[in-house]
Amino acid sequence: TEEGAGVSGDGEDLSDLLTDLSQVHNSRERASRLFQWLISPVPAKTFFKETWEKKPILVQRKNPHYYKGLFSTAEFDRILRQEDVQYGVNLDVTSYVNGKRETHNPPGRALPFTVWDFYESGCSLRMLNPQAFSSTVWNVLSILQEQFGSMAGANVYLTPPGTQGFAPHYDDIEAFVVQLEGKKHWRVYNPRTEDEVLPVFSSPNFDQADIGKPILEVVLEAGDLLYFPRGFIHQGDCLPDAHSLHITISSFQKNSWGDLLQKLVPAALEVAMEEDVEFRQGLPLDYLTYMGVQNSDKNDPRRTKFFSRIESLMKKLANFAPVDAAVDQKARDFLHDCLPPKLTAEELASSVQGAPVRWERGQVTDVCAQITEQTRVRLLRAGCARLCSDGDGVLVYYTTDNSRVYHKEEPKSFEIETEHTDAVEFLIHSYPKFVTVGSLPCDSEEDKVLLAELLFKRGIIQTAEPL
Amino acid sequence: TEEGAGVSGDGEDLSDLLTDLSQVHNSRERASRLFQWLISPVPAKTFFKETWEKKPILVQRKNPHYYKGLFSTAEFDRILRQEDVQYGVNLDVTSYVNGKRETHNPPGRALPFTVWDFYESGCSLRMLNPQAFSSTVWNVLSILQEQFGSMAGANVYLTPPGTQGFAPHYDDIEAFVVQLEGKKHWRVYNPRTEDEVLPVFSSPNFDQADIGKPILEVVLEAGDLLYFPRGFIHQGDCLPDAHSLHITISSFQKNSWGDLLQKLVPAALEVAMEEDVEFRQGLPLDYLTYMGVQNSDKNDPRRTKFFSRIESLMKKLANFAPVDAAVDQKARDFLHDCLPPKLTAEELASSVQGAPVRWERGQVTDVCAQITEQTRVRLLRAGCARLCSDGDGVLVYYTTDNSRVYHKEEPKSFEIETEHTDAVEFLIHSYPKFVTVGSLPCDSEEDKVLLAELLFKRGIIQTAEPL
Amino acid sequence: TEEGAGVSGDGEDLSDLLTDLSQVHNSRERASRLFQWLISPVPAKTFFKETWEKKPILVQRKNPHYYKGLFSTAEFDRILRQEDVQYGVNLDVTSYVNGKRETHNPPGRALPFTVWDFYESGCSLRMLNPQAFSSTVWNVLSILQEQFGSMAGANVYLTPPGTQGFAPHYDDIEAFVVQLEGKKHWRVYNPRTEDEVLPVFSSPNFDQADIGKPILEVVLEAGDLLYFPRGFIHQGDCLPDAHSLHITISSFQKNSWGDLLQKLVPAALEVAMEEDVEFRQGLPLDYLTYMGVQNSDKNDPRRTKFFSRIESLMKKLANFAPVDAAVDQKARDFLHDCLPPKLTAEELASSVQGAPVRWERGQVTDVCAQITEQTRVRLLRAGCARLCSDGDGVLVYYTTDNSRVYHKEEPKSFEIETEHTDAVEFLIHSYPKFVTVGSLPCDSEEDKVLLAELLFKRGIIQTAEPL
Amino acid sequence: TEEGAGVSGDGEDLSDLLTDLSQVHNSRERASRLFQWLISPVPAKTFFKETWEKKPILVQRKNPHYYKGLFSTAEFDRILRQEDVQYGVNLDVTSYVNGKRETHNPPGRALPFTVWDFYESGCSLRMLNPQAFSSTVWNVLSILQEQFGSMAGANVYLTPPGTQGFAPHYDDIEAFVVQLEGKKHWRVYNPRTEDEVLPVFSSPNFDQADIGKPILEVVLEAGDLLYFPRGFIHQGDCLPDAHSLHITISSFQKNSWGDLLQKLVPAALEVAMEEDVEFRQGLPLDYLTYMGVQNSDKNDPRRTKFFSRIESLMKKLANFAPVDAAVDQKARDFLHDCLPPKLTAEELASSVQGAPVRWERGQVTDVCAQITEQTRVRLLRAGCARLCSDGDGVLVYYTTDNSRVYHKEEPKSFEIETEHTDAVEFLIHSYPKFVTVGSLPCDSEEDKVLLAELLFKRGIIQTAEPL
Repeated sequence: TEEGAGVSGDGEDLSDLLTDLSQVHNSRERASRLFQWLISPVPAKTFFKETWEKKPILVQRKNPHYYKGLFSTAEFDRILRQEDVQYGVNLDVTSYVNGKRETHNPPGRALPFTVWDFYESGCSLRMLNPQAFSSTVWNVLSILQEQFGSMAGANVYLTPPGTQGFAPHYDDIEAFVVQLEGKKHWRVYNPRTEDEVLPVFSSPNFDQADIGKPILEVVLEAGDLLYFPRGFIHQGDCLPDAHSLHITISSFQKNSWGDLLQKLVPAALEVAMEEDVEFRQGLPLDYLTYMGVQNSDKNDPRRTKFFSRIESLMKKLANFAPVDAAVDQKARDFLHDCLPPKLTAEELASSVQGAPVRWERGQVTDVCAQITEQTRVRLLRAGCARLCSDGDGVLVYYTTDNSRVYHKEEPKSFEIETEHTDAVEFLIHSYPKFVTVGSLPCDSEEDKVLLAELLFKRGIIQTAEPL
Repeated sequence: TEEGAGVSGDGEDLSDLLTDLSQVHNSRERASRLFQWLISPVPAKTFFKETWEKKPILVQRKNPHYYKGLFSTAEFDRILRQEDVQYGVNLDVTSYVNGKRETHNPPGRALPFTVWDFYESGCSLRMLNPQAFSSTVWNVLSILQEQFGSMAGANVYLTPPGTQGFAPHYDDIEAFVVQLEGKKHWRVYNPRTEDEVLPVFSSPNFDQADIGKPILEVVLEAGDLLYFPRGFIHQGDCLPDAHSLHITISSFQKNSWGDLLQKLVPAALEVAMEEDVEFRQGLPLDYLTYMGVQNSDKNDPRRTKFFSRIESLMKKLANFAPVDAAVDQKARDFLHDCLPPKLTAEELASSVQGAPVRWERGQVTDVCAQITEQTRVRLLRAGCARLCSDGDGVLVYYTTDNSRVYHKEEPKSFEIETEHTDAVEFLIHSYPKFVTVGSLPCDSEEDKVLLAELLFKRGIIQTAEPL
Repeated sequence: TEEGAGVSGDGEDLSDLLTDLSQVHNSRERASRLFQWLISPVPAKTFFKETWEKKPILVQRKNPHYYKGLFSTAEFDRILRQEDVQYGVNLDVTSYVNGKRETHNPPGRALPFTVWDFYESGCSLRMLNPQAFSSTVWNVLSILQEQFGSMAGANVYLTPPGTQGFAPHYDDIEAFVVQLEGKKHWRVYNPRTEDEVLPVFSSPNFDQADIGKPILEVVLEAGDLLYFPRGFIHQGDCLPDAHSLHITISSFQKNSWGDLLQKLVPAALEVAMEEDVEFRQGLPLDYLTYMGVQNSDKNDPRRTKFFSRIESLMKKLANFAPVDAAVDQKARDFLHDCLPPKLTAEELASSVQGAPVRWERGQVTDVCAQITEQTRVRLLRAGCARLCSDGDGVLVYYTTDNSRVYHKEEPKSFEIETEHTDAVEFLIHSYPKFVTVGSLPCDSEEDKVLLAELLFKRGIIQTAEPL
Repeated sequence: TEEGAGVSGDGEDLSDLLTDLSQVHNSRERASRLFQWLISPVPAKTFFKETWEKKPILVQRKNPHYYKGLFSTAEFDRILRQEDVQYGVNLDVTSYVNGKRETHNPPGRALPFTVWDFYESGCSLRMLNPQAFSSTVWNVLSILQEQFGSMAGANVYLTPPGTQGFAPHYDDIEAFVVQLEGKKHWRVYNPRTEDEVLPVFSSPNFDQADIGKPILEVVLEAGDLLYFPRGFIHQGDCLPDAHSLHITISSFQKNSWGDLLQKLVPAALEVAMEEDVEFRQGLPLDYLTYMGVQNSDKNDPRRTKFFSRIESLMKKLANFAPVDAAVDQKARDFLHDCLPPKLTAEELASSVQGAPVRWERGQVTDVCAQITEQTRVRLLRAGCARLCSDGDGVLVYYTTDNSRVYHKEEPKSFEIETEHTDAVEFLIHSYPKFVTVGSLPCDSEEDKVLLAELLFKRGIIQTAEPL
């Protein structure tokens, strides 16, 4: 297919693919290629048209190596050994036996000695943010978040043979279940009611009696993929003969039109009250005598008039909706949620993070060249910075100082002078093209260089050639 | 005029009027009569149609006794002497000299010795909640709040001859300036712009240069009334030959359609997200690349589509608006803002507050008769209680335990059993008629009496005859 | 007796006594006379030497009128009717039946209708701060607090015939049980152990089985007094033929040497660390290896040495104790706890509170004379103001702006300039003598008058003649 | 010297020494040997007797390699490159030019590009907690803290040639300035007054005019050591021809007798008030009339009596001092402050942290043997756990789950059953000897093994042989 051009799982493992992708110079293109690899051979276009948010889909590949390199139990073991994994924060120990779901987390650090002991006794292990410990998972998610325009997260699940770790339930995210090792028997069920289609919140644990018959039942093997939208109930258990390791990649948590409206609608009302006197006019003197729940059964013409005035005002609200400003509020949240980019070798070499300047033999060496008007620059990634107006000033929000641990850092932003707005906007819109610092629409030559230095030091832009 | 029937300021002072009004058995009727007296001879109907929220109006009566009994400087002095008036809390000492507005409040209690010293040196005195100290002001405001369906407040202003205490400004309330003693020279100005018509917030102090020419200039004398809507700039100063005492009665602070929508609109969105899957559907994957302030100049067809989807969703919102529930939220706030009713002698005699039971000669005497099914009851005032649904249960909110000091008490409410809802609603809707306890639509005879006792003990209902 | 000279309960009721006392010009003398009346005929000197904090004492007078005028059930009824008495805040409804102690407070205001209903059904009523509602109780306590040098409080107890309202227990205060009406059967028991002699905290409710035999059993009649120290267990019940009303006057809560040391000892250590290097020297490197609970059984000579060093440092601590500063901390708390003085007619006439200046016939009249150097002044009460050093500046703490409701007002104080310290100290030490403003040791004549005006406006000083 | 036996800086670098020390089986012995190396050739005994907390001492070695391996600017550069160093949190950029001390921290991560730019422009760099980034510094400090019985901290300072980064000042810690690279010119000054000997708080920056003449002036070269006690003013600047890198190792912050007394003295008073009625007796009725600052000049015999009563009570306080419990409070703070131990290979192999159990070829392998009664165990380090009574229960506090970042983790402890107290105490006192699990004084065989497993899983004990 067109979308799949140049990406193939056959005989190529993920690290090769990621190396190839590092040569794709537009990060949005990179993102769509990686997503295509994830759901291949289904074309992404088809997927988003027919499947996304609509129904489950299963990809069986008969190729256990397809997702190789993404994550493994060996990596799991290495992480336990080398990193500070804390029970309850980074790792959950769970079981689901005879319809009873339990969590067994002790306090403190999860060391192999205790973790493997739990596993041997039949407990499932869920690693909550593998992106903080695995560079590859970090890299993959940080690329995919540009595809989704919404945070991409992941959990890893390791299940002993013949056991189940979780009760049937549905989640509040779009889920891509990527089978990495072994096998797992999955059952997927339709949302139970219209109200649970694309739900806002995850469900509690269900009893088997509550969920009806599965619409999909399958044994997932290494290399296979199972996608299902939020609201679809699911459960997975291991066959007696094999353990299972899978990673669930997720996105679109609180990313609906309604979530945007939650930011937009109060803002629209505020604007309406400022701009339209109808919204500031007083309520009828006597409205409390015929409105309200205690009067809801009254057949009073004043009620009709009141409802119709309300309806008219609510309809007018749309005229005052500051849509772009509300999108920016949502964008700010997204930029805060984002993983920082995992830089390619080339990106490193041309950005502040990989600047060669260093201490050697008693002094600072390899001091970088200065940024000049001739230096050619661009954003490090299409989505790594965004210009937002914050009422008073103009702010640049950016992802490059975020942490691999969710929200460990505060939202990162800095205010820029109004006269630099055009230059930053120019840079953002020029991506993926490099432009010379001299071409930035600033008032003075000095300003151009100072602005470029500022953005370079924050890790937001890269140079065409290493400094 | 029709509205004015039976109320006249001629030769009748306020205490007579209030006595007359105590014989008006419907508190809403009582309220409209008192309001008519306030603005007489302008018919209330005309006033609300042509003047209210639209323009200033002046009533000159040539009758200095018209408002007699409402408040006086002698009462002011008595209050200072007998009550705990605190500077900054209950009393402000101000001056406006050579365009400079100052406040002179020392800490602590405002005693006559210091207060009159300030007055003698040319300072104005503003008493902030005379209703807490003056029974008459309390009575008048507690009646008027039923007319407005919104809190009625008051400030008293005492100004020495030849001085001005405040800079020109506009307020966020409808103002009735009632001249009580002496004279005051007033100037009223139009709102400066469309945005300042019926404004949401009060203005800062203005310079004389900012406010243009007055549309009304007058010397108010005792017995006169000046009304102006929120947003109309005003200033008053004393002539060299007379001090001035006036009370400003105010209402309709934060009581606009927009204020109601602030409660309604988020609730409507919440319902919409629960009931309509369109609100739960995900945003477009790429919306951040063409929406937001940084893309607002882009001519992108996807923007048009996005705007039109937003518009369509916002228009639909009205379908989900829980109007009665939002009105109840507003009603709850109003009931919290309300002054408690000042009971008439008759109301006292037939309610818990005036029950004759007392200690005399070593024992409890005059024990009241029990409430029985034959007892006839009704609400103490039309607006003293309200049935609101609070998500889970049904609550009765009520004003009779409020304080004369604004929000000194928490909102007063109690939950009633679902099977008592109809009975309370029946009582509310029966007002001003008395009904027998036996006629309450409750499951059992015992329930009827228990419910009536509960409402009686809270001071919400009165009996037709003293118990 | 000498102490009792001039005060007698015979035929003289409390209001006469209080009138007499208003002629006693030294408030400390006034306090000791009132206390003498309370415990008459026991001489106060004897009482404090032999009884106070040591054992119960009973005074039976066969004079039911002795305490007449202090409080009555009629006053109780009046308060319910006229004041805002809140269940749980100002009034408790209790019962003690078959060994079970219960509280029956409903929410909201305590109106006669419901209160007397509880009483009739056998519940006891405890009014928690009668001083806020009764001028006489306020007056008596505000005088007695000068006698105790510690807050004087009171509760009123009304008990129906044949009932008991409280379980046996002991309190954390010295208690003077003053029988006002009817009769009550009292039993008093010794503290159960040495640890419960003069206890720091009140006890829980005891079972009858826990408290042994009473050391005192008596039927208290109107006019009688029963005193017992904190720690003495007590219970009282009504005989079938009479109700009981008593007021318990209390003092010396948290007023022990230990309470003072809690302020003094940390301060002493702070001074010691500043002034004596021995306190700043480091601990032994290895002290954790032989000290601490896990090493407490070790027989290690280093432990002995460590203990002895600690002992030596603790003994030295006394040398650094800022005793007067700690007493001032305690004094500040006391002044905050104090009731404001209830002024006599004469005090009123010569202080800011009773200044005759008033509004009459359209203007301020009876403007007071100015304070001049010839004006003779003194503190309004011996204990109404106190000079305390607060680290940086010198502050005057005072009681005259306190509320009759405990701690309703913040502690009242103001900073004075260092050069006014001597003058305020001079005033304090001159009491009860009047001194001329001109005799205040200030730098300038103007300063003397300004300081006197300041103190006069705060209600701290009175003039020898009305201004 | 005796103390120095087996540790020498000649030709041996720190990693060899640390390897040697890993063979020293008692962690306290290990600590004292490492400390001896630090101050060699001065014998530790002599040092602590004559120098510690008393005066500066200088060790010039003419051996630039003596401290090699502890830290280097190359390591500094590596850390900037690889770790998340944040300006203001982990790194300060400072300058001291013409008597003006400035800090230049930008927000965000400190990358080599910006850091070396600051350095090149003459700024000094202070790394605030090198132990979080350097394993060697972590190891050294975690060993030394057992020598000091108090937290050992460190800062690293890198100064460009010809500059000074800090104003003269004194600190609140004992400081060991270890010169690592280049040279630095130091001046040390006596405490200015008795009050600044062994001060509780660090000083502000001083002007050169405030500090007098240095008592020690020297150019420190790589391999040299300068120690000075808290309170000694110091400043260091670089000669024009060489940069300087030094690490300052510190200890004994808030570790004085007075700091212990701050925990002990309030506790002693609490006990005294419980146990001795003299502390609970009331203050004199009239003490406020002769005590307090306003009475401090009075010559009143009651003052003498009051002072002497206070003195007597304060002297008695020592009798009630719960010294071991207060030491435990201090110990708890210390265990919270501690770095976690950096385990040697051998410690790793025999503790939970290095247990060989792992995931290999699709399954859990190398499962450890079980702990049995025959297993021989001991604490991992002498000071890694401590038994403290916490009022109600007995708690084990421990350091093995602490973070290398100061107080990043909450204090770590767990309650043990009372019947296990003896066993834990036995284990603590047996150190450095191994004991069999069977020899633990527990009630049952099962208990012994369960307790050992618990302690093993927390990382508190090691086994004599790998499991």
